[in-house]
Amino acid sequence: MRMDELVFKAGLAKQASYSLSQTPNPVRNRALESMARAIVDHANEIIEANKADIDDYKKKFPSSPLLDRLILNDSRIRDASKGLLKVSALPDPIGEVVEGWKTDNGLQIKRIRVPLGVVGAIYESRPNVTIDIAGLAIKSGNAVILRGGSEAIRSNAIIGKIIQNSLNGIIDKNAVQVIEDPDRSIVDRMIKLRGLIDVIIPRGGSNFIDYIVKNSTVPVIETGAGNNHIFVNWDADQDMATKIITNAKVQRPAVCNAVRKVLIHKDIAESYLPKIVNEMKKYGVKVKGDEASLKICPTIEPASREDWDTEYLDLTLAIKIVNSVEEAVNHINAHGTKHSEAIITKNISDAEYFTNNVDAACTYVNASIRFTDGEQFGFGAEVGISTQKLHARGPMGLRELTTTKYIIYGNGQIREI
Amino acid sequence: MRMDELVFKAGLAKQASYSLSQTPNPVRNRALESMARAIVDHANEIIEANKADIDDYKKKFPSSPLLDRLILNDSRIRDASKGLLKVSALPDPIGEVVEGWKTDNGLQIKRIRVPLGVVGAIYESRPNVTIDIAGLAIKSGNAVILRGGSEAIRSNAIIGKIIQNSLNGIIDKNAVQVIEDPDRSIVDRMIKLRGLIDVIIPRGGSNFIDYIVKNSTVPVIETGAGNNHIFVNWDADQDMATKIITNAKVQRPAVCNAVRKVLIHKDIAESYLPKIVNEMKKYGVKVKGDEASLKICPTIEPASREDWDTEYLDLTLAIKIVNSVEEAVNHINAHGTKHSEAIITKNISDAEYFTNNVDAACTYVNASIRFTDGEQFGFGAEVGISTQKLHARGPMGLRELTTTKYIIYGNGQIREI
Repeated sequence: MRMDELVFKAGLAKQASYSLSQTPNPVRNRALESMARAIVDHANEIIEANKADIDDYKKKFPSSPLLDRLILNDSRIRDASKGLLKVSALPDPIGEVVEGWKTDNGLQIKRIRVPLGVVGAIYESRPNVTIDIAGLAIKSGNAVILRGGSEAIRSNAIIGKIIQNSLNGIIDKNAVQVIEDPDRSIVDRMIKLRGLIDVIIPRGGSNFIDYIVKNSTVPVIETGAGNNHIFVNWDADQDMATKIITNAKVQRPAVCNAVRKVLIHKDIAESYLPKIVNEMKKYGVKVKGDEASLKICPTIEPASREDWDTEYLDLTLAIKIVNSVEEAVNHINAHGTKHSEAIITKNISDAEYFTNNVDAACTYVNASIRFTDGEQFGFGAEVGISTQKLHARGPMGLRELTTTKYIIYGNGQIREI
Repeated sequence: MRMDELVFKAGLAKQASYSLSQTPNPVRNRALESMARAIVDHANEIIEANKADIDDYKKKFPSSPLLDRLILNDSRIRDASKGLLKVSALPDPIGEVVEGWKTDNGLQIKRIRVPLGVVGAIYESRPNVTIDIAGLAIKSGNAVILRGGSEAIRSNAIIGKIIQNSLNGIIDKNAVQVIEDPDRSIVDRMIKLRGLIDVIIPRGGSNFIDYIVKNSTVPVIETGAGNNHIFVNWDADQDMATKIITNAKVQRPAVCNAVRKVLIHKDIAESYLPKIVNEMKKYGVKVKGDEASLKICPTIEPASREDWDTEYLDLTLAIKIVNSVEEAVNHINAHGTKHSEAIITKNISDAEYFTNNVDAACTYVNASIRFTDGEQFGFGAEVGISTQKLHARGPMGLRELTTTKYIIYGNGQIREI
């Protein structure tokens, strides 16, 4: 019988997670520094394996625009190495006493922050993610099982070996496990390993994440799509609105915190709509609009019903004219993906109505939604951006890779009723 | 076409959740007080519907010990009513600014506590749970969809109507929805209503909870089983150990925070094992043991391999002799259900080793594990006890029915890179 790689490695990771959870921060930092050194020292081996992955990929997809994501070169390896050192310098999330109190009968209750245990990461293409997530996991005291895309299988395998060797003698090297079996069914089995894996973090397109969420029996932290809106209120500083919309639409249109829809208050539609449409055209943005918009700017394309639910990953923007902040909020709650939403306004009451009533991880007043990002929020490293409500919401840092446990000291207390 | 009750009611609940999330605490409290009054005022109608449920149940299961759980009488209704008033008096969990800071570029970021939205509760038998969960949901600003067992369908339906009427004019009465369709397939559809329901809380036996966890696409807060251990170390105060074990085994053997297994350090096994076995026999506890225990006390029953993974819900206890605190911890991490675990010891280093290395929601030193309970922890109301690691761990109060959102104020900031 063939050894079952997945279950075997998951068992090793679980075992390692117990010792790692008790490893002091300086030792975890040394492990990260050793990893950082090792991947630079062995850059040639990584690049060689990566070349083989690239050659295979090119044969299958001769001119894919996604090829770039697969490439590891000297500078990318150096960046990943620097990233590990940055993570090692972050404050330790583990051991914090989150709260504590004494009960009337003298029990001393403490709630302390501890690692989750074994983190399962499932992702596509980019092999530098293997390095990033391994670093975040170790820093937060977790073991990790990494399953990258089959197109990067050789790159990930060699990175896994180099990392394990670099950990040896510092922490249990089994804390980092890279799954080398390219069979896609591994993913289906991995998301059913309740008890061995404590959390699954999927990274990738929204169909992929949806699939994981629907099929996983291991709890998932969902990092979701961003069908994000900017609402320009009747009293908005229109120059500020244009600057913010341009930033959120044009700077990096494919990322999840870019804007997809603009809502404009009817009282300023006649004056503002032509301005923003013109500005967008300067950057090659394709603008679509609802019926009311088309009456003012007949040159723009009509938006279909599906458009309002579509997360454009390119330079497309749909505009809708709304009668009030209430209508803007209702539209956002019906069509948004609970990621990042903004209002541009000068008056407090509409700003408060908007931020209180929009159901999203992050709501902005007079700022670009592109700031929804762990780095920008000051978390140092970013695990992803959660669009779910349980456990983590919004940009996730190291803290979101932890849980808490209660420790209770008594002196013989028993319960009376 | 027949109206789809589930989707219709879920839509009403979602709508109500938006207004409820903005309802001030005094208004939510008034809603709870009105509910509390109404169920007492209409106790006769509830008892009448409950009688019909009971009659049906008796026909199907003439002498079931579970019948008692189904019964609502005057005193139980009064208790549930008092429970609502107690919940209304608890501090408001909503609106707390959990953290906040200003970034270098002047963004003001606040993280505030908000309701989850729509809570879906799925439970068995006891119709008073309908009242309890409705109260907890409203207090925490959530709408709720309640699906009790089909055996209590008439009781739950009338309670739902009485509650809705009592809310009318105070908050949106649609915030409380009781599903009346007795078809079991409703549960399967309810746990797939991602987007309409924000969290599913299952209450019931471990097979039932397992089923929900494995099939739900809505995030679940798992309230799980307790295969709990008490480890008596070599230096334990043996009288204290006996008192604690007796309390944890005998007081309420069917609850999830009762003890199922006792681990005894080998150095005291010869002296302590006969004592605890005798004491247990006084209370009619059936004691099983591993091989080493049987050598010392040949009268006890041998424990099978499955025993170590079984959550006895009756007066059964299995005892195992271990060589060290390390072996105790390893056994617990291999067989426990991450609920409540205790060590009885006098020395700090074993206490610390135990609490640091046992992977459980609550670990105790020298106290009964029966204290794992929201009431005992001082949370006032209890939603359940979470044995998962994401979102909530251990006893859950009102706070665990909330999430947070980021609100960011700027003055035109855009992102440069």
